[in-house]
This record gives sequence, C-alpha cells and structure tokens, in this order.
Amino acid sequence: MSRRAAAPESGEDRLIARHFRPLARHPAALGLADDAAVLTPPPGCDLVLTTDGIIAGVHVFPDETAEAVARKALRVNLSDLAAKGAKPAGFLLSIALPAATSEEWLAAFARALGADAEHYGCPLLGGDTDKTPGPLSVSIAAFGTLPSGTMVRRSGARAGDVMFVSGTIGDATLGLMLRKGEGTGARLSAAARAHLLARYRLPEPRTALAEAVRVHASAAIDISDGLAGDLAKLCRASDVSARVEVDAVPFSDGARAMLAADRVLLETVLTGGDDYEILAAVPAARAQDFRAAAAAAGVPVSEIGRIEPGDGTPQFLGRDRTPLAFDRPSYSHF
Amino acid sequence: MSRRAAAPESGEDRLIARHFRPLARHPAALGLADDAAVLTPPPGCDLVLTTDGIIAGVHVFPDETAEAVARKALRVNLSDLAAKGAKPAGFLLSIALPAATSEEWLAAFARALGADAEHYGCPLLGGDTDKTPGPLSVSIAAFGTLPSGTMVRRSGARAGDVMFVSGTIGDATLGLMLRKGEGTGARLSAAARAHLLARYRLPEPRTALAEAVRVHASAAIDISDGLAGDLAKLCRASDVSARVEVDAVPFSDGARAMLAADRVLLETVLTGGDDYEILAAVPAARAQDFRAAAAAAGVPVSEIGRIEPGDGTPQFLGRDRTPLAFDRPSYSHF
Repeated sequence: MSRRAAAPESGEDRLIARHFRPLARHPAALGLADDAAVLTPPPGCDLVLTTDGIIAGVHVFPDETAEAVARKALRVNLSDLAAKGAKPAGFLLSIALPAATSEEWLAAFARALGADAEHYGCPLLGGDTDKTPGPLSVSIAAFGTLPSGTMVRRSGARAGDVMFVSGTIGDATLGLMLRKGEGTGARLSAAARAHLLARYRLPEPRTALAEAVRVHASAAIDISDGLAGDLAKLCRASDVSARVEVDAVPFSDGARAMLAADRVLLETVLTGGDDYEILAAVPAARAQDFRAAAAAAGVPVSEIGRIEPGDGTPQFLGRDRTPLAFDRPSYSHF
Repeated sequence: MSRRAAAPESGEDRLIARHFRPLARHPAALGLADDAAVLTPPPGCDLVLTTDGIIAGVHVFPDETAEAVARKALRVNLSDLAAKGAKPAGFLLSIALPAATSEEWLAAFARALGADAEHYGCPLLGGDTDKTPGPLSVSIAAFGTLPSGTMVRRSGARAGDVMFVSGTIGDATLGLMLRKGEGTGARLSAAARAHLLARYRLPEPRTALAEAVRVHASAAIDISDGLAGDLAKLCRASDVSARVEVDAVPFSDGARAMLAADRVLLETVLTGGDDYEILAAVPAARAQDFRAAAAAAGVPVSEIGRIEPGDGTPQFLGRDRTPLAFDRPSYSHF
C-alpha cells in the first residue's frame, strides 16, 4: 500500500528482468513479459498440479542460504509430482521478500533455482514478486504431465500389494536434530553427520522414479510428514491397513549409528518429516517389474511390508513381532 | 520446525477437511485428499497459468476482513486470466496463517472463497496450508483454458489499433486515499464514497469480457499497476507507442467529483493501481464487433485512443492537446 516513484520500467520489472528472466527460456514463459504463461499440454495428457511453500523460520532456518531455500522450495513440489507418476512440465514462483533482501541474495536464489529447474526439467513459467514485512516466503505451484487417467493416487492400494519406499527413511529428521544441537552426533563419522545434515537441508526428489511408479504402483504418496503418518494417509484413502516390518525399513549408515546409540530414536525416524522419499503400493504380480524399473532408473527401493485388509491403521512390527505404538505418528504444523 | 503431537489425522488435515474440502467439489481436486490435483485439459486447448499473492499490510489493510482477503486473492488472478482471453478452469491456494487465526476467520475465508469460486466458475483444485510468524499471506495460482494458440498477449498491438478499457479508471486508488483519510472525501455523496471504497477493497474481474478479448483483441493487459504504467508495458512488449485522449478515459461519478475538486488527482487516477480493468488493443476493423461483444457480455468498454508507431512511450493528451508528464507512471512495490 505504499507507493514509490518508479521509472516507466518499474523496480519490480527490473528485478524480474535481471534475476528471473534468464531462467524463463521455455516458450510457455513468454520471457516473463506477460500477465500469464501459456502451456500447450501434450495431446492425451493430464496435468498434475501441486503447490507447496517454504517460509523462513518455519520450513527452513531463518539464516538458511538463498541457494538452499530456492532448491528446497522447488524440490518439495517435484517430490509430489514424482509420487504421482508425473513428468515435470514447469512451475510458477510466488516470492515475498523482506525489505532487507539484497541483490546478491536474489542473484544466488535465482541461480540455484535455475540450476535445479534445468536439472529436473521443470522450467520457470511465471511468477509474482512482492515485498513483505514478514519472513521470506516462497510458494511454488508445479505442474507435471502424464498420459490421461494414469495419475497414481493415494487411494488405489489393495490388500496384498507390496509396500516399497525409495532411498532411506529418517535421515532428514535426524539431520534437523543435529542442526539444533540435539541427539548423539558425537558418535557419528564426519561423513555420516554431513549426510544427515544435507538430507534435512536439501531434499532429493525422486523424479527419476516417477515413470516406474506410474506404470506399476496402485497407490503412492511422497513421504513429507513421516513414514508412519503418510502411510496412514495412504491407508485411509485406500480403505485398507498395512503391516510394516521395521527391520525392513531402509536406514542410512548415519541413521543406523544413531539408532544403535539410542533406540528411542526409532519413533523419531519413523514419524519425522522431510524424507521426500516415495512410498508406493505395488500389486504383488508387478513387484519384480517395479524393482527392475527402479533399478534401471538408478533409484534404490526397499520392500517394507504389505497392504492388508482392515480399518486404516497401519501396524509397525518390531524385531519381536510386537506392534510399535507412536505418541505422534505424523508431523503437522497445526 | 516445531513439532507437536498430532492424532493419526493431523491438525492440518482436519483444518483442510473442515474448511476447504467443501469447496473442492470439482473431480480434479480429488477431495483435497491427495498430494496433487489432476486436470484433463479440453482437447485442442492451451492452459493459461498465472499467480498473484495477497499479504496483509501490503496488498490489503492488516485488519481487512477474511471475506475481502479471500475474494481479492482470487479475483486479482481471475483478472489476469480475463485479460488473456482465458476461461477460468481452477486454482491452487497456498495460505500462511498467523498463529492467532481463529476457526471463525478460516470459516469466513473459506465461505467467501467458495462463493467466488462458484460465481466465477473457478474451482479450488488443491492447496497448501502453513503457519507463519509473519502476516497472513495468500498466494493463488490460477489456470484458464482457451483454444490452442489464441491467448491474447501484451505483444500483439499494431499501429492503428483502437485502445479500449473496460469499466472506469482510478476508482480503486481514490478509494485507497479515502480509506487512508486522504483526499477530498467530504465533497462526495455517500454513494460515491462507498463506490470508491468498494472498488479498492474488492476488484471485479472482467471474466465476462474474456471471450470478446480473445476473439477481437490484438493485445491486452489487466490494469493492476495503473493505466499509464500498464499501457507502457503493453507498448514496450508490442514495440509501439500510443496516444490516449484523457477526456476519453472513463471515470465514475465519484472520481469525476474528486477530479473536479482537485485536478492534481488526474495523475493519481491515471497512474494508480488496483483498477483490475482490462486494457485491450483492437484492430480498427474489429472495433465495432468488439464493442458489440462487450455489450452482449454486459461489460462497459470505452475507446480511449490509438496505438501509434513509435518508441514505446505512450502519450496522454489533455484537453488542450498538450501531453501530460507523470512523476511516477506506474505502481511498483520496489
């Protein structure tokens, strides 16, 4: 609501031209010089739409680098697209900048965003830039494509399906503990510690797994609020239950070292957020093909249990086959 | 980064289910119960994508009602779609809520958003809900459809085209003045004052004009940063200039009364923001058809001047045919 003198080309226009136009090479972006972007969906394709935001002090530490904020903001959205089996098609960026934001910060933000957009094949198509009296806030709406009718939902899991997860579970939540100075970091090798910290700071969306998920999975979800909570969501949506063998859940070396030192962390790793791995239910008859497709895509996947008939509350079975009970199964801001 | 105890169905899930799921009746939204929405674009259509945000204390007053915030957030995006000639197809909502936000506020916000979504045929497809230590912030990404290749850009204006604007110009910026206790409000009738205040609080997107723009206009832009500034943007994008007859610019009764009392406000109304009218360049041979299509759509349009060859700096001619010079031609946050 404040107004300031502006040349015929406004400050916002110049800011966009300087930092973001170089990213907008896709023809749909119209060089960020129009009110909107225009995308021609491939014939016979559906568009998958998702949005996720990053607020400094909420989703990242207030002093997080411009590069990490940019990458995390895009990657959490790419993770959703991958879990649905969609190929990235582009994104819109809505960014609210505190008054103190420097040109250098913006330049670094845009460079990192551009590098990720290039790497994941997800071009910047348009956006909105504002000043805010609040914390830095980045909201991205991302779009993916897939053949019509093939989006993998949360609701398709059936009793007997094999449950797979990509990568390793719990690293990010342990990395957050270490970042906050909690936990037993002293027992870790420098490499393991660095790995856990990196997993919290920078999700690695499983874009490479999207096609295998699309072709083989009956249901899938990206694990952003913890394995236990996101599995519960998938089960509720599918009207099934599940049984997970905790010993089959894949952990990194660092996570294993921390778990060995403090078994109480088992709940932390199974219910913590920010994994950005994919949880997929795959019909048993397709499990081998899914495994082969994942291997061909270079993404490690692990079988962690089975979908079962039931009331939607998944069970996690420990080494002695007794079910684990969690105090707080899922991460939530509310 | 804080974690709180949550039931298997998290607080965020409950909040979404209670307030936003009732809005998500479009099949593409999947009841807001998935990671993403899935939209099947009509065959032969392009998708027009735009995003715009509302931050309390920046785009609306900090004490603005939930209803007005919701409506403004959606409508500024609908205005962009209309200016491009697109029919609304749906939107994603990203909302960051201060901790003090009440259930009543959210319920009112969702109800108003739902009413506008219904009225403008633009359903909620998905979203993201976060807590923020900063001000309330609402970012919407909206999608429209139109036959492939027919999006009206800023860059298509040609010398000789007739410039039209919808509605009246300058009301919102005068309404903002009145809201801040500035200006000569005392000379206004209660109705004129209420009209100007309402025009600031609640844009009326020209969705009904979209098809006429799409069929007849060579270039168009929604007037959000002031007529002078947005015309300059259109001219720069089209590599043309323009000549506007100030006497032909449509003003409301309230704006005319304020201008009569204080001619200095002429610059204010021509350069102020938040009009959310459409500026369209229409080839002279189509001007009559455009006028007829606008009338059929129930949207008033006025011819304000012509596109001319030149260097991109539009001229505004006063009553004595001398060009006006503006200190600050366009609204900008930066």
